Amino acid sequence: MIIVMKENATDEQKERVKKRLTELGFDIHQSTGVLKTIFGAVGQVTGWLVEEMQALEGIDQAFRVSDPFKLAGRSFHPDPTVIRVGKAEVGGNRVVVMAGPCSVEDREGMRRIARSAAAGGATVLRGGAFKPRSSPYAFQGLGKEGLEILAAVAAESGLATVSEVMDTRDVDLVCRYVDVLQIGARNMQNTPLLKEVGRTAKPVLLKRGLSATIEEWIMAAEYVMSEGNYQVMMCERGIRTYETSTRNTLDISAIPIVHEKTHLPVVADPSHAVGRRDKVIVMARAAVAAGADALLVEIHHNPEVAVSDGPQTLFLEQFAQMMAEIRPVARAIGRDA
Amino acid sequence: MIIVMKENATDEQKERVKKRLTELGFDIHQSTGVLKTIFGAVGQVTGWLVEEMQALEGIDQAFRVSDPFKLAGRSFHPDPTVIRVGKAEVGGNRVVVMAGPCSVEDREGMRRIARSAAAGGATVLRGGAFKPRSSPYAFQGLGKEGLEILAAVAAESGLATVSEVMDTRDVDLVCRYVDVLQIGARNMQNTPLLKEVGRTAKPVLLKRGLSATIEEWIMAAEYVMSEGNYQVMMCERGIRTYETSTRNTLDISAIPIVHEKTHLPVVADPSHAVGRRDKVIVMARAAVAAGADALLVEIHHNPEVAVSDGPQTLFLEQFAQMMAEIRPVARAIGRDA
Amino acid sequence: MIIVMKENATDEQKERVKKRLTELGFDIHQSTGVLKTIFGAVGQVTGWLVEEMQALEGIDQAFRVSDPFKLAGRSFHPDPTVIRVGKAEVGGNRVVVMAGPCSVEDREGMRRIARSAAAGGATVLRGGAFKPRSSPYAFQGLGKEGLEILAAVAAESGLATVSEVMDTRDVDLVCRYVDVLQIGARNMQNTPLLKEVGRTAKPVLLKRGLSATIEEWIMAAEYVMSEGNYQVMMCERGIRTYETSTRNTLDISAIPIVHEKTHLPVVADPSHAVGRRDKVIVMARAAVAAGADALLVEIHHNPEVAVSDGPQTLFLEQFAQMMAEIRPVARAIGRDA
Amino acid sequence: MIIVMKENATDEQKERVKKRLTELGFDIHQSTGVLKTIFGAVGQVTGWLVEEMQALEGIDQAFRVSDPFKLAGRSFHPDPTVIRVGKAEVGGNRVVVMAGPCSVEDREGMRRIARSAAAGGATVLRGGAFKPRSSPYAFQGLGKEGLEILAAVAAESGLATVSEVMDTRDVDLVCRYVDVLQIGARNMQNTPLLKEVGRTAKPVLLKRGLSATIEEWIMAAEYVMSEGNYQVMMCERGIRTYETSTRNTLDISAIPIVHEKTHLPVVADPSHAVGRRDKVIVMARAAVAAGADALLVEIHHNPEVAVSDGPQTLFLEQFAQMMAEIRPVARAIGRDA
Repeated sequence: MIIVMKENATDEQKERVKKRLTELGFDIHQSTGVLKTIFGAVGQVTGWLVEEMQALEGIDQAFRVSDPFKLAGRSFHPDPTVIRVGKAEVGGNRVVVMAGPCSVEDREGMRRIARSAAAGGATVLRGGAFKPRSSPYAFQGLGKEGLEILAAVAAESGLATVSEVMDTRDVDLVCRYVDVLQIGARNMQNTPLLKEVGRTAKPVLLKRGLSATIEEWIMAAEYVMSEGNYQVMMCERGIRTYETSTRNTLDISAIPIVHEKTHLPVVADPSHAVGRRDKVIVMARAAVAAGADALLVEIHHNPEVAVSDGPQTLFLEQFAQMMAEIRPVARAIGRDA
Repeated sequence: MIIVMKENATDEQKERVKKRLTELGFDIHQSTGVLKTIFGAVGQVTGWLVEEMQALEGIDQAFRVSDPFKLAGRSFHPDPTVIRVGKAEVGGNRVVVMAGPCSVEDREGMRRIARSAAAGGATVLRGGAFKPRSSPYAFQGLGKEGLEILAAVAAESGLATVSEVMDTRDVDLVCRYVDVLQIGARNMQNTPLLKEVGRTAKPVLLKRGLSATIEEWIMAAEYVMSEGNYQVMMCERGIRTYETSTRNTLDISAIPIVHEKTHLPVVADPSHAVGRRDKVIVMARAAVAAGADALLVEIHHNPEVAVSDGPQTLFLEQFAQMMAEIRPVARAIGRDA
Repeated sequence: MIIVMKENATDEQKERVKKRLTELGFDIHQSTGVLKTIFGAVGQVTGWLVEEMQALEGIDQAFRVSDPFKLAGRSFHPDPTVIRVGKAEVGGNRVVVMAGPCSVEDREGMRRIARSAAAGGATVLRGGAFKPRSSPYAFQGLGKEGLEILAAVAAESGLATVSEVMDTRDVDLVCRYVDVLQIGARNMQNTPLLKEVGRTAKPVLLKRGLSATIEEWIMAAEYVMSEGNYQVMMCERGIRTYETSTRNTLDISAIPIVHEKTHLPVVADPSHAVGRRDKVIVMARAAVAAGADALLVEIHHNPEVAVSDGPQTLFLEQFAQMMAEIRPVARAIGRDA
Repeated sequence: MIIVMKENATDEQKERVKKRLTELGFDIHQSTGVLKTIFGAVGQVTGWLVEEMQALEGIDQAFRVSDPFKLAGRSFHPDPTVIRVGKAEVGGNRVVVMAGPCSVEDREGMRRIARSAAAGGATVLRGGAFKPRSSPYAFQGLGKEGLEILAAVAAESGLATVSEVMDTRDVDLVCRYVDVLQIGARNMQNTPLLKEVGRTAKPVLLKRGLSATIEEWIMAAEYVMSEGNYQVMMCERGIRTYETSTRNTLDISAIPIVHEKTHLPVVADPSHAVGRRDKVIVMARAAVAAGADALLVEIHHNPEVAVSDGPQTLFLEQFAQMMAEIRPVARAIGRDA
């Protein structure tokens, strides 16, 4: 940690900073410039400690020189983590495709979707049973019944499953039905929920919060991992910006940055990012070209009447088209899909 | 709802839109321009329905003409809602002040803070027992013990209390100790939690999400209200922008806009917005001038060593100064403080 | 244009709206709902007119149903525009590569860069002679001398040239030396400059403003085109967001959206977007996968001591690597590079 | 400047950093931690130099410890700068009010506006003659004729004047007619224009760019000042955020921050910030409470038919109301208005 004192900091203030650093177990290097005094503090510095140091009067700036996460970082685990989901390996050479409707609606429709997903080359079936809708008057998901349909239908087509859990009280229930627990963007900093899924043995698909920095997102993964569950997939799904021609802005640069900073696989969700089906395929191509380990896309046999997220949901033929377009891109960068 | 068809929309697509609107119970007005066909749909339109309509092929844009909320809106309740908290009335003529540390740390410190809060004119004591920290390695709050200290100390000084609840499983517990349930910014769209506090009889202080639009924030209030609890205070605490010289950007214009769109009282939190104690007082003045019904500020007897949020926490003397500065501003706009 | 009146709009206000629309030459459709009256106005509506209508009291919202641009739009020119730059065709099947240093520094270095650019497959040499630096104390460019070096060195290697013009007074000068006039992000809404380059016969590379919406960006192109110069290339170079791990956020979804809304070719600049050389190649791949017609990248024989933008500038070997990586991606989507 | 080397930086890279710092005239302090080596460089560091250092391989982060501006900073000029404009003093105890239409339209209307402005207590008349419109098809201003009307009408009412200049070629012309040169938000980083107004003897009102950081905004002031003109007023006019219920978000915290970092007076423009007339007065009150030295507001005798910015323009009676509301707020913080 580096601490820069204000130009007009008093000697007493400087002493207090040194005293506090010493109390916290740091070695201190002092560097006295013409205008400003700088302290370098060597030791175990966690992110919050830097913030706390800034509470001292007389400090101009305090910088961290290390990342605030540990378990998610490359120092802890230099090789990329590969997470097995059914027969797929997320983080391996093959780009994994997870597809399905926003919400599970009914068994027959789900069955059609699952068959097309499997036929197209998806290995994981998505489908929401607990839905975080903006309006309390919108469809909130089928709950347990939705999970049952999802599990049954996926099994028929040989697919693994992913579904969102929103409430700490539902974690056990969802674990009984699905292969991957999804934490939605709105719950990325729901720390009790992160801890709870961290205590399960299920892989976690962690969506980036609507306006989470990459660091905050990795810290959310750290919450899960700090409870013992190291199987976290990081899912970029678009961030909130001022631009309104897409629902969100897919931050494709987050893919290589998370790959650099962590050992965790990265999933891209072009559907939620753009919010309109006519731009999903092109963004899927871009995400694969940028190194995404998996794609999460919304597909439906009749998206025009889907109960949620219809505008961004691909028709089943469009899904087949997407698969046909991403395969050569994957191969162009030395991967399969 | 207004639906604008694409220039190249087919007749079949137009028919499908009309059919779907009719199924949903709308009356339809069609307006055929040179380039584009426009449908006006009259009926009960909720926000999500507009989104769903956009799923139909051939639609260029779909606009809502009514707000997506009901219970929070002025049509439902034209007069401003006044919420009683202890002896204070949030939404009344007097600007209510809620003050206290970020986290409850220990009984003796809390006692000193509470006395200064009461002496300065605050009527509600804040203090976190469950803390949503960015890092799993940072202090997570004292939990139940923190609630006990908060309640006991507040009672000694004749103050009401507000504290955050983060987990649906803790709502009952927190209700036993505090007067106001706080929903933090990170949980603004934690819909199970919103529903759960909506089933209690306690006033709710609902913080705006880090990058929530005003409409999403009001929809979160609607979630609480849809369960029967109409006592919601809207707390503006700064939004995330590209600017880094403050921790967040206090969106003061949100105060008059929420006042216009809803009947709910508005609280301003300058501490979290600016993130540095030397700018809290000036922003408190601005918030009062803009019509905030209450202020929520962090104060501590020794903020330099506070376990959380120290940099933005006022010294007790600064709190007295803040009260001295906001009173004439409140009077200047015809209120008390 | 659609105009939604407020619930409490008076009859007099409604009449004034109708009168004003009639004065402006519109046909009016009125649709009276239970709560709100809606007017559809059919005629030639430009963007600013919608804004002006909102000035009338009693109006709740006014929406445009057509795009505010004409010359840049697909209705005006359905086929994609192909712009010839030297021997390259921007907007054709081959992905064009424009490479060079941020600033022109000296003839010998420039010569080395140009040779590597040409050898790698670039067809356009970039190099700034007038630099819009954040600080008045930073290097401001070599001016006319820089243009001379750029032109001479490019000719030796058979490359075309692109360089920024910042001042209306310099347009003639820059035209004498370069093949493409660049309008920088900071000048995207410098309307006198847009008009001035619109009066030349040179292709214009128009960078998206730091936080310009796609619509504002297209309107800037419209400024150039409204003066008679239709050869505009749209350059996405990253937008400003709250995320700080990259200098800007490359909005890759802007590529297909500009392609849909306009007939103009789209250039991607991964260098300015990410601001760090280790992420340029991967983002170049993603941009090509998303359909970019050209890439603009910064390269230098010794980027560690480049006078500007060194951190994001590729070493010459990295440029060769980039070319090797984008070619298979271009072929994967049916293009050359 | 502080330079943090990457964990895996080689000795050769470290030596190159030291060599480069020495070449640039710095004294170096080295601090070798367990994982990372840190260099403190003492000397004259300008902002761009920090960026350039980051170009060296092996560097993880480089931090500035001093502000990148000089002339605008408090070290250079500890006391607040007071700028005389006609009979007003911007930066003095009295809050100065600048009012007028967005665009100068015609002499008679302008006369009515000027009289009301003066009667209400404004001392400066605003009015645009050169307008930076989003659309080339919108009204672009009356040019020289507009300046003549503005100057003549202001003189009749004893007001000073402010008007925007957009083109370096127009600076002389505008100087002949107005008392204050306005640089618009879209031209905040038009560096040739900044330098050109820096060579005049007229005070400059420098609007913050649409998404400029406070530091970039101050650097723009530094451009003006570096040419010898120290009379710069900083005008906060709202920043671009994701929120759409206001046109921009008025960053009121920028007022105290600019006051802390610079000696320059700060003007607030609530009209452009909120974009709707019904929220201008309340935001004017908040800006005054936060310490704004002046307000810039749009007023018109018939804003419903104003040729530009009508929606945010106050009726003349509303302007009188605004003056009545801000005066007690100014007095509440010890100022006049």
